[in-house]
Amino acid sequence: MIEYIVPIAGFTGLAFAAYLARYVLNQDKGTQKMQDIANAIAEGANAFLHRQYSTIGKLAVIVAAILAAVWYIAAPENKGAAAFKVGFAFLTGAAMSAISGYVGMYISVRSNVRAAAAARKSASDALTVALRGGAVTGLLIVCLSVLGVAGIYYLYSALFGLGKDTPLYIVGYGFGASFVALFAQLGGGIYTKAADVGADLVGKIEAGIPEDDPRNPAVIADLVGDNVGDCAGRGADLFESTAAENIGAMILGILLFPIAGFAGILFPLVARALGIFATIAGLFSVKMKEDEDPMKALARGYVITSILAAIFFYIAVKIMFAPTIPGHMWLFASGLVGIAMSVVFLYLTDYYTSDKYRPVQEIAESSQTGPATNIISGLAVSMETTALPAITICASLLLAFYFGGKSGVAHGGLYGTALATMGMLATCAYILAMDTFGPITDNANGIIEMSGFSGEVRKVTDKLDAVGNTTKALTKGYAVGSAGLAAFLLFQAYMEAVHINIVDIAKPDVFVGGFVGVMLVFIFSSLAIRAVGRNAYVIINEVRRQFREIPGIMEGKAKADYAACVDICTRGALKEMVLPGMLPVLGPVLIGVSFKYAYGSGGEAVASFLMMGTIGGVILAMMMNNGGGAWDNAKKYIEAGAYGGKRLADGSKNPTHAAAVVGDTVGDPLKDTAGPSLHVVIKLLSTITLVLAPLFV
Amino acid sequence: MIEYIVPIAGFTGLAFAAYLARYVLNQDKGTQKMQDIANAIAEGANAFLHRQYSTIGKLAVIVAAILAAVWYIAAPENKGAAAFKVGFAFLTGAAMSAISGYVGMYISVRSNVRAAAAARKSASDALTVALRGGAVTGLLIVCLSVLGVAGIYYLYSALFGLGKDTPLYIVGYGFGASFVALFAQLGGGIYTKAADVGADLVGKIEAGIPEDDPRNPAVIADLVGDNVGDCAGRGADLFESTAAENIGAMILGILLFPIAGFAGILFPLVARALGIFATIAGLFSVKMKEDEDPMKALARGYVITSILAAIFFYIAVKIMFAPTIPGHMWLFASGLVGIAMSVVFLYLTDYYTSDKYRPVQEIAESSQTGPATNIISGLAVSMETTALPAITICASLLLAFYFGGKSGVAHGGLYGTALATMGMLATCAYILAMDTFGPITDNANGIIEMSGFSGEVRKVTDKLDAVGNTTKALTKGYAVGSAGLAAFLLFQAYMEAVHINIVDIAKPDVFVGGFVGVMLVFIFSSLAIRAVGRNAYVIINEVRRQFREIPGIMEGKAKADYAACVDICTRGALKEMVLPGMLPVLGPVLIGVSFKYAYGSGGEAVASFLMMGTIGGVILAMMMNNGGGAWDNAKKYIEAGAYGGKRLADGSKNPTHAAAVVGDTVGDPLKDTAGPSLHVVIKLLSTITLVLAPLFV
Repeated sequence: MIEYIVPIAGFTGLAFAAYLARYVLNQDKGTQKMQDIANAIAEGANAFLHRQYSTIGKLAVIVAAILAAVWYIAAPENKGAAAFKVGFAFLTGAAMSAISGYVGMYISVRSNVRAAAAARKSASDALTVALRGGAVTGLLIVCLSVLGVAGIYYLYSALFGLGKDTPLYIVGYGFGASFVALFAQLGGGIYTKAADVGADLVGKIEAGIPEDDPRNPAVIADLVGDNVGDCAGRGADLFESTAAENIGAMILGILLFPIAGFAGILFPLVARALGIFATIAGLFSVKMKEDEDPMKALARGYVITSILAAIFFYIAVKIMFAPTIPGHMWLFASGLVGIAMSVVFLYLTDYYTSDKYRPVQEIAESSQTGPATNIISGLAVSMETTALPAITICASLLLAFYFGGKSGVAHGGLYGTALATMGMLATCAYILAMDTFGPITDNANGIIEMSGFSGEVRKVTDKLDAVGNTTKALTKGYAVGSAGLAAFLLFQAYMEAVHINIVDIAKPDVFVGGFVGVMLVFIFSSLAIRAVGRNAYVIINEVRRQFREIPGIMEGKAKADYAACVDICTRGALKEMVLPGMLPVLGPVLIGVSFKYAYGSGGEAVASFLMMGTIGGVILAMMMNNGGGAWDNAKKYIEAGAYGGKRLADGSKNPTHAAAVVGDTVGDPLKDTAGPSLHVVIKLLSTITLVLAPLFV
Repeated sequence: MIEYIVPIAGFTGLAFAAYLARYVLNQDKGTQKMQDIANAIAEGANAFLHRQYSTIGKLAVIVAAILAAVWYIAAPENKGAAAFKVGFAFLTGAAMSAISGYVGMYISVRSNVRAAAAARKSASDALTVALRGGAVTGLLIVCLSVLGVAGIYYLYSALFGLGKDTPLYIVGYGFGASFVALFAQLGGGIYTKAADVGADLVGKIEAGIPEDDPRNPAVIADLVGDNVGDCAGRGADLFESTAAENIGAMILGILLFPIAGFAGILFPLVARALGIFATIAGLFSVKMKEDEDPMKALARGYVITSILAAIFFYIAVKIMFAPTIPGHMWLFASGLVGIAMSVVFLYLTDYYTSDKYRPVQEIAESSQTGPATNIISGLAVSMETTALPAITICASLLLAFYFGGKSGVAHGGLYGTALATMGMLATCAYILAMDTFGPITDNANGIIEMSGFSGEVRKVTDKLDAVGNTTKALTKGYAVGSAGLAAFLLFQAYMEAVHINIVDIAKPDVFVGGFVGVMLVFIFSSLAIRAVGRNAYVIINEVRRQFREIPGIMEGKAKADYAACVDICTRGALKEMVLPGMLPVLGPVLIGVSFKYAYGSGGEAVASFLMMGTIGGVILAMMMNNGGGAWDNAKKYIEAGAYGGKRLADGSKNPTHAAAVVGDTVGDPLKDTAGPSLHVVIKLLSTITLVLAPLFV
């Protein structure tokens, strides 16, 4: 009865998260000034989350009602039960996602000041605090997602009888998670980049004051933004990834039912549960030696997590599949493909976005001839960065399918792709911990800078901040890679759910469905980028107003009105997230329903829409994420001294650096708003089509 | 025997082109100084074309040999005939494309100085010379393309017996045209933008001298570039469009053979032939009233051409299909959809790229906060511009399919989409005339400026230059729209040729084929953009060297070494075009052959590769073309006085304008190199897969 491991792992993970949270909260909070700043950040983040969730909550209730109504009408029998199953699952998914986002954020905005305080002692102490703070979010998200899926599965089995089709009824959970994730990532992404661009353009460029300078009225909004974008936003993204992909894998598990019984359906849950143990062990193993590159310590922990995940995967395959499937070792091989792919993706992302390699250096070099050549070269690099990741996704998919097929089970190939996705997700909690490490160290650095520290402490937090930027970039690579790999899985789950076997793009309506799908991801990105521009514009005017109207602000005699910027940014982000957010929700419905009536082919047109939209979305997201990261690091490469550094020998501003700053600013909304939101869109397209399947066929 | 109209129209068109060429060459050539400049441009263009064609020629001979070998091996019987048919058609297509490019260019670089000379008399005279010069290229390309396809068709029918499968053997012609077009557009695009960016960055930004200033050593290279990029490049693009789409439509015509006999196969040729008459009439109708907006006169001519094309289309349908197909009026309706779509596309392109509307004005407005916000807003607009064109393509496709289906013929729907493409291409020669009008007026303006004219003449050529920029932008919209509409047609022709009926993207290998297809267009664009950057860098260094080493150059006392820049740019462009050029040639071969052996599914995987690559390519090309055009016109909008104009009241440079110049420079390689080259790539993917079909199945 290995499946009992699921609740055991889930609750163990939660207990461990609570332990880590306690550990972090017990650390020294630093000076009063540090605490004041941290409190301002916490308040701002809290206010944003509060308003954001209340907006999302209202929308979610409406959507739940519509969903229930659709299923009530479409279900051939037991109409009430069908409506309840989907509606309840949706609300549970939405609520679980919101809870994990909220609690994760609560810890993050308290870890930052404690990491800053620890930095006064040693880099190693600061690293530990920041990583453990991040690990709370990571564990919380993964455990709540696993417990949620398992809970609903067992609840529905108990209430409605244990049928093999149960996973089909809990897709609502995945859609609920996607729905919250879309708005969380979009709203958070718009918030963080509007504040960042706004603060930089007026502060750094117009007023000539450094980053994180307390005189800049938008500086707190900028620090809040890192939390709501990277922590709450990406957390919700990966919450839904794990949920949706888990459910998708369970649906494909139904295919194995005739041979393996419930093992195929439950295996994804078990694999994820074991991944939690691997992550806990990996997190404990991270000890940074003094003077060591912090990235090395984090990478060591990741390698340990991956190796343990592979071992646990092997054990689970042995226990669950050995009795019924003679070729079960091939299924293990499929899982290994996923684990290997996640490691490869981290290396590829590093290659494209680190200043140690050609792509970033090329952008830095071309900055010498001004901002135009910086942008041209950055665009070329952005597009180039889609190559190796796309090939990796394709190769992994074909390999996992091949291995799965060798197992000798009917549909083993498809199940192999599901196992690869589960393998990739096994280390998800560790990845999330590294991701949330980013905003915590970024904030710690800001707090240290605003509190007037200098010397060794500044160096420590600067270094950790740089590592945090790297981990954030790597996480995005991982997130988009998992989206790409999962696309095929979710697509197959959809086809299984609507009972179609082929998607023939040679039919004009199916072709058009795909065309519109690719278009949708471009329009969505356009709206997301524009939302940042519009919101930034409002912030810029507010900062300019404060510089103009508050006397003594530039001399540091009067205090800037941080709260006004936070408030404006919050309202702007929530307003701007609605239009782009509705697009991926309404798009598939429109295509599916209209093509159903026009051609009787709603299911197939939607499948093509989903598939091509996903391919286009994965490639566009990679382009924006990696390109933005490369621009960012090209600027940092110059700041570190290349091509003259920040200032020339005569003390004047280096135009090469100024050109690189333009590229960095352009990359911001791409890599932190549009790109990450596209990950969510891709998966939301899958969950919404899955959950609304009765409308299309 | 209406098909005799084909050679009649073709030779009439050629005769008319000869008449126009004579008319243009008989015009006044202006002052000696003007002639000197024009000669320098003509020499540079000639040198580039000569070297480019000799490179392409060598590659073409190799490819022809490989093609012939593939068909020799693959053909089940008559191996020699099969090899000859494909190889000879390929070389003919390549040669015809090269001839039309060469002759068109010969007239263009002689029309520019004559248009400049005429501008001294009146705007109307200058417009007439420039449009007639452009019309030579337009007619030449369309007539040679029609005569080539028809000639090979009749030749092969005579040599090998008139079988309904003859069109399948002349796809080599289309591939030959695609092959030349790819390198012509790519090499020309790299040349023109490297020269442009190089001349601007050193001349305008570093040295502070105006555009087209004779002191700038790269100024002649820049003027040459407009000819080799817009005239020879786009000419080759549309030569291959008309050829490939014509052949594709003829292949689909085979489907109608049981009912309509050869009428279905020959109709595409007849429709195109009648389009030539419509264009001749339209060109003659263009008379510009003094003080009229030149664009209005050109638009009037286009409307007349379109209406005549529709009437002729009706007549052709009546004569060819009325006897056998009772529902033939529905086929006419499909053709009308294409004609209407081409008009709609011109309006949409105008909306997205003209400074009269929101998108361009939005970019101009955001330039106020610097280059970063200009680029962010431009990227958002770029992505947005894919929406309405994509919807238009999809709607046209569905509508043409619907109408075709209503005709009651088996496969009428598919044939309807072919007729829509033919409808769209009916006005192609007029569009090409407007396109070539662009480089002619651009050059005329440059010649006037370099010859030291001022006052009224400058205003006239400035105005015509601006109109030329608009027509160039519109033509690109038309070219990508026709590529989008034709994609489905060519895809169906491919499926007909390889005898597969469905393309099921639910299979992992077919899915992966599509994924790689989308990736390919991104990588291709990356390489094309980078090639411009690299070549521009070389030009920048050469211009800097001349400014440094030639004493008196800035005072206008010493003459710049134009030839050196032209030579460097030529060598650079030819070197840089090879790598991106090989990608779309080798990509499908690699996918097709490897998947054939791994999965036995080469045909289907290639179909998916082709289809998704095309959708991705059309959308990416629209994004780059329209975005680049919008950036360009946002700059011009500011120069016309918005947001402070070029210089502020105190005479200092307006930073808003400087920000817009950055956007304009970024847009250059997108709209004039990568975007237009992608049109060709899309169609090349179709023709190469068609011609290499025996390798994949």
